[in-house]
Amino acid sequence: MRVFDEAAIRRAVDPEAVVDAIAEGFRLYTNGEVDVPPVGLLHFEDPPGDVHIKYGAIRGDGYYVVKVASGFYENTGRGLPVSDGSMLLYDRRTGEMLAVLLDRGWLTEVRTGAAGAVAARLLAPQDVERIGIVGTGVQARFQLRALRAATRCRKVVAWGRHPGRLEAYAGEMAAEGWEIETTPDLAVLVGGCRLIVTVTPAREPLIKDEWVCPGTHITAVGSDNLGKQELDPAIFARADIVAADSISQATHHGECVHGLASGHLKSARIVELGAIVADPSLGRTSPDQVTVADLTGVAVQDIQVAKMAWAALRG
Amino acid sequence: MRVFDEAAIRRAVDPEAVVDAIAEGFRLYTNGEVDVPPVGLLHFEDPPGDVHIKYGAIRGDGYYVVKVASGFYENTGRGLPVSDGSMLLYDRRTGEMLAVLLDRGWLTEVRTGAAGAVAARLLAPQDVERIGIVGTGVQARFQLRALRAATRCRKVVAWGRHPGRLEAYAGEMAAEGWEIETTPDLAVLVGGCRLIVTVTPAREPLIKDEWVCPGTHITAVGSDNLGKQELDPAIFARADIVAADSISQATHHGECVHGLASGHLKSARIVELGAIVADPSLGRTSPDQVTVADLTGVAVQDIQVAKMAWAALRG
Repeated sequence: MRVFDEAAIRRAVDPEAVVDAIAEGFRLYTNGEVDVPPVGLLHFEDPPGDVHIKYGAIRGDGYYVVKVASGFYENTGRGLPVSDGSMLLYDRRTGEMLAVLLDRGWLTEVRTGAAGAVAARLLAPQDVERIGIVGTGVQARFQLRALRAATRCRKVVAWGRHPGRLEAYAGEMAAEGWEIETTPDLAVLVGGCRLIVTVTPAREPLIKDEWVCPGTHITAVGSDNLGKQELDPAIFARADIVAADSISQATHHGECVHGLASGHLKSARIVELGAIVADPSLGRTSPDQVTVADLTGVAVQDIQVAKMAWAALRG
Repeated sequence: MRVFDEAAIRRAVDPEAVVDAIAEGFRLYTNGEVDVPPVGLLHFEDPPGDVHIKYGAIRGDGYYVVKVASGFYENTGRGLPVSDGSMLLYDRRTGEMLAVLLDRGWLTEVRTGAAGAVAARLLAPQDVERIGIVGTGVQARFQLRALRAATRCRKVVAWGRHPGRLEAYAGEMAAEGWEIETTPDLAVLVGGCRLIVTVTPAREPLIKDEWVCPGTHITAVGSDNLGKQELDPAIFARADIVAADSISQATHHGECVHGLASGHLKSARIVELGAIVADPSLGRTSPDQVTVADLTGVAVQDIQVAKMAWAALRG
């Protein structure tokens, strides 16, 4: 059994290279080849914290993976990050523990970013001139980085609620080679970008339907829990394609929940990203289509990224 | 974060010293102070294997524990043990992973043995002259070892279905200081022992009601799953006290299931070991009582033994 710390994992894993593995994971998931039991939960009060235990295996694969992720909300006052996490990789033939990946949540950020890149590959129009990033948090960084593997576009418009954080985001992303501008006006961002990623903790719609031009793709990442919402649900009625990483999750606690509740979306219209990976004709077929992808995060992403880390680290 | 292997854990943890911690864990569990969510399960075929993920925390405690245990049934052919397992210990205030205990299942054997000692302390008569051990597997060893912390008796009668394994068991236990004899006749064992532990994978009753003398305590450890059974259910009707580590588990998949099914036992008669720890007057009150304890294994035992290991190992 080997233990790898976050620094070693960051050195070994190329986030852009994860994108193909995540696409393949979605294909296997949609094809029913992944065992993903219900998430285990522990909830604490005083100090408040939540622990999620996600685990599963791909049929016929050599591994199973257990991820323990936590959020302890008073950690900031202790000089610690709120989120923490690690992944355990086991030999599926013997139960032997092969590796403890002490990535402290980094691999989760990477696999979530990679899912955005998969959605963009399958649904964004060709020749995007500007990428719109809505949100300025950690995952907004990982989303943009992963898009290197999905588009040649390097021009970005970013929006955030907090001017200071928006400038910090723009500065960091510029240093990573992006030609980035910021706007205080979300309508300007939506009107000027054909590939938009929303990565906020918003609890009511940020993106209005009337702002969305033909030929726009939106990936909604922020709504990963009940009560969160980033899109005007009328956008679902407009959309030619509504995709999700997992239909069962998206219709339970993702952005799609709001489209279903308002009647703008019928669940039968939602197509899983894995189905589009298997049959790209289910993805964008013309430059004027409006498309939406709703990401909630599936354990098969953890399995795939843990396997990639192990392959890179085992030497 | 620190990693400890099986050898280090064995050196640091005294199985007899675990008994008090397990008794306290049962008290907290019965008192509703332990969060033990449903067990996570992964099942594999070809090669066959099962993975159990048990996790939980004691309210107000400094830790939470995740145990990943596996059984891969073709491991024997690979020169590996069938069972494997490890425990992860976390700081409950921050989510920080403190320790990976690579005990390979040893701590589970210890905490299960300790539960038998708790039952014997609370329910076995004073001045037992002979301990009866029914079964010759690994846990039959741990049960007997733990009883050092529950009785002064060092005379043992052992029974097993396989003569070779029975002799091996007797030899090993004799080397550990027990005055041990074996018998091919289970009725002789039951008639001659006032403290009996059953630790077999039996699927039909081994111990007949008519063999059981007044003043006998029986701890049934083997029946940890549906379909397993070690006791004639009529023993439950005879018993003055029927105890269980967990009433909800014992009546779902423990030995008690058979007493309930046959009508020899009403669930309202079952008392939890934790209730007897809190109020010993609920335990044995006279030397002639017949008592039964049904052990199925509760996650609070894992929490308690992992904490003891950490306290001994952290230095």
